[in-house]
Amino acid sequence: MLQNDLYLKALAGDPVPRPPVWMMRQAGRYLPSYLKLQEKYDFFTRCETPELVAEITCLPIDEIGPDAAILFSDILVVPRALGHSIRMISGEGPVLDNPIQSAEQALALKPVDAEQALDYVMNGIRTTRERLDERVPLIGFAGAPWTLLCYMVEGRGSKDFSRAKVFCYQHPEAARHVLSLLTDVTVDYLNAQIRAGVHAVQVFDSWAGLLSPDDFNTFAMPCLQRITEEVRGAPVVLFAKGAWYALELLSWQTRAAALSIDWTVGPEFARQAAGWDITLQGNYDPSRLLSPVSVIREQVKRMIDRFGKDRYIVNLGHGMLPNIPVDHARAFVDAVKSYAVS
Amino acid sequence: MLQNDLYLKALAGDPVPRPPVWMMRQAGRYLPSYLKLQEKYDFFTRCETPELVAEITCLPIDEIGPDAAILFSDILVVPRALGHSIRMISGEGPVLDNPIQSAEQALALKPVDAEQALDYVMNGIRTTRERLDERVPLIGFAGAPWTLLCYMVEGRGSKDFSRAKVFCYQHPEAARHVLSLLTDVTVDYLNAQIRAGVHAVQVFDSWAGLLSPDDFNTFAMPCLQRITEEVRGAPVVLFAKGAWYALELLSWQTRAAALSIDWTVGPEFARQAAGWDITLQGNYDPSRLLSPVSVIREQVKRMIDRFGKDRYIVNLGHGMLPNIPVDHARAFVDAVKSYAVS
Repeated sequence: MLQNDLYLKALAGDPVPRPPVWMMRQAGRYLPSYLKLQEKYDFFTRCETPELVAEITCLPIDEIGPDAAILFSDILVVPRALGHSIRMISGEGPVLDNPIQSAEQALALKPVDAEQALDYVMNGIRTTRERLDERVPLIGFAGAPWTLLCYMVEGRGSKDFSRAKVFCYQHPEAARHVLSLLTDVTVDYLNAQIRAGVHAVQVFDSWAGLLSPDDFNTFAMPCLQRITEEVRGAPVVLFAKGAWYALELLSWQTRAAALSIDWTVGPEFARQAAGWDITLQGNYDPSRLLSPVSVIREQVKRMIDRFGKDRYIVNLGHGMLPNIPVDHARAFVDAVKSYAVS
Repeated sequence: MLQNDLYLKALAGDPVPRPPVWMMRQAGRYLPSYLKLQEKYDFFTRCETPELVAEITCLPIDEIGPDAAILFSDILVVPRALGHSIRMISGEGPVLDNPIQSAEQALALKPVDAEQALDYVMNGIRTTRERLDERVPLIGFAGAPWTLLCYMVEGRGSKDFSRAKVFCYQHPEAARHVLSLLTDVTVDYLNAQIRAGVHAVQVFDSWAGLLSPDDFNTFAMPCLQRITEEVRGAPVVLFAKGAWYALELLSWQTRAAALSIDWTVGPEFARQAAGWDITLQGNYDPSRLLSPVSVIREQVKRMIDRFGKDRYIVNLGHGMLPNIPVDHARAFVDAVKSYAVS
């Protein structure tokens, strides 16, 4: 039995005394304890070693105290399982050695058995569950197909992923094949994570906002819809970063339990678009965590006042930045814990 | 007397047989004729030499045929006039040698006489007007203060300009000083451009969308408001890229004649937010210009159908990309010219 189930209650729409809080990339480079492990083990060693996954996942639980843990892993484990070898280059990010450059190459892409190919993730989940010892729920995750395609075509991070977008515009059939295959694999992958023990899953469509509403509906939406329909046994949270225009569709035309939103979306707009039958998650600007602590406290209070304490999960609008002081992250979490309706 | 005043009519809200069209960064690297000049002259030589400014500004008018010309220049001429020396680094973009790193440095910033410091721009405008010979109107422009601050603090382009944002969050008074000074200089600069002969001016707030609505209202909005109030004698167009949430305020609380919008904003949303007393400009995704020409034609037709032919200027949602074929740019313009209400 979970000692703290605020996060799951908020996802289910049950009333809570205060909203739960966690932070995207809460086990990241802003934590000195993480940096020590980063020095000792390379990125995929950290992802593949169950003891390291468990240790890193639990660091923020011990040091910062959020109401949920998110598995330490990376969205690129899926393209990696599909045969892209990936190097993590310091100061630049991930580089995929063999990006998709033609329709033929895209159409030749073959699926994998996600549970088998990514068994190290499932082992990591089991070890993490033991180490968490029912203190807080564990969140699993995957990249959304559109965002994975971005990396698989572009081959690396990009400001606008225009190569990936243009690939879809010039080869819509080949793009559809890749997206459909990625959706299949992602569904299997998330279902396997749930069987291994995660309490909820989040789908990160980090580059959704690069698309126009029409192109989002063509290339991103069908994948997200199918994922929420075919993932079973745990709530699904969708984070389509930048796709403010899709909140209404994501709420009404998927089976998501919650929508995570970035900091450009006002709480009132989000609630109006999404309606009251879905939980909202977000949306503090991570760079605002470099404000003075007194400002963080005030802004968190005001944010909860505006979202409301129920059907709401306090989070950032994107991942933690490496240069955020640990005590500022703690102030953010503590401000939520001491929240009282005024 | 202008031979083609469709653009000015659309700005004034006068009915037109078809909407006018131009493309942001229409005189850019996708044009082979521009690339030849780029090989011969460095960036600021091109900006500072009136004959080159006129020649480059007119290239797309001769080769592509849009309904307006936009002065060839750069938003960074203002930080440069304020003492930042700037190097254009191939493949990376602009680098400012002495970025603002402290509140003291920010508070020590002194204004300049824009008309005098940027007299080369005014000379470029006069030479361009001669060369245009009243074929189409000439658009002047400047960077918005928030966007200029981003570069002046960050020192270079950035994915999230988090250094600049954090500077504002940690030193709001110093940021206000810089923004207010930049607003003064920008007002003087745009008024000088108008006296030199531009028919309208556009203000580019390229990084507006990195801010939350609250932070936009604090750091960007007051500058845009004051610019539209203090620039006289020509219509002002605001392009707050990514700030979809601010369209309503920008329409109702500034004196802008038009709002330019990026491709994430649906025509119906934009019109509902901005109302009918303002012209909208945009918003074709530039990377969509790499679609097959038949798709471009269809999409342009549909875009005009949705925006309506009046109070609308066809444009992109951001600048032209270097790899767009010239005949695709021409197809975009031609599709507008052959538009007929269906």
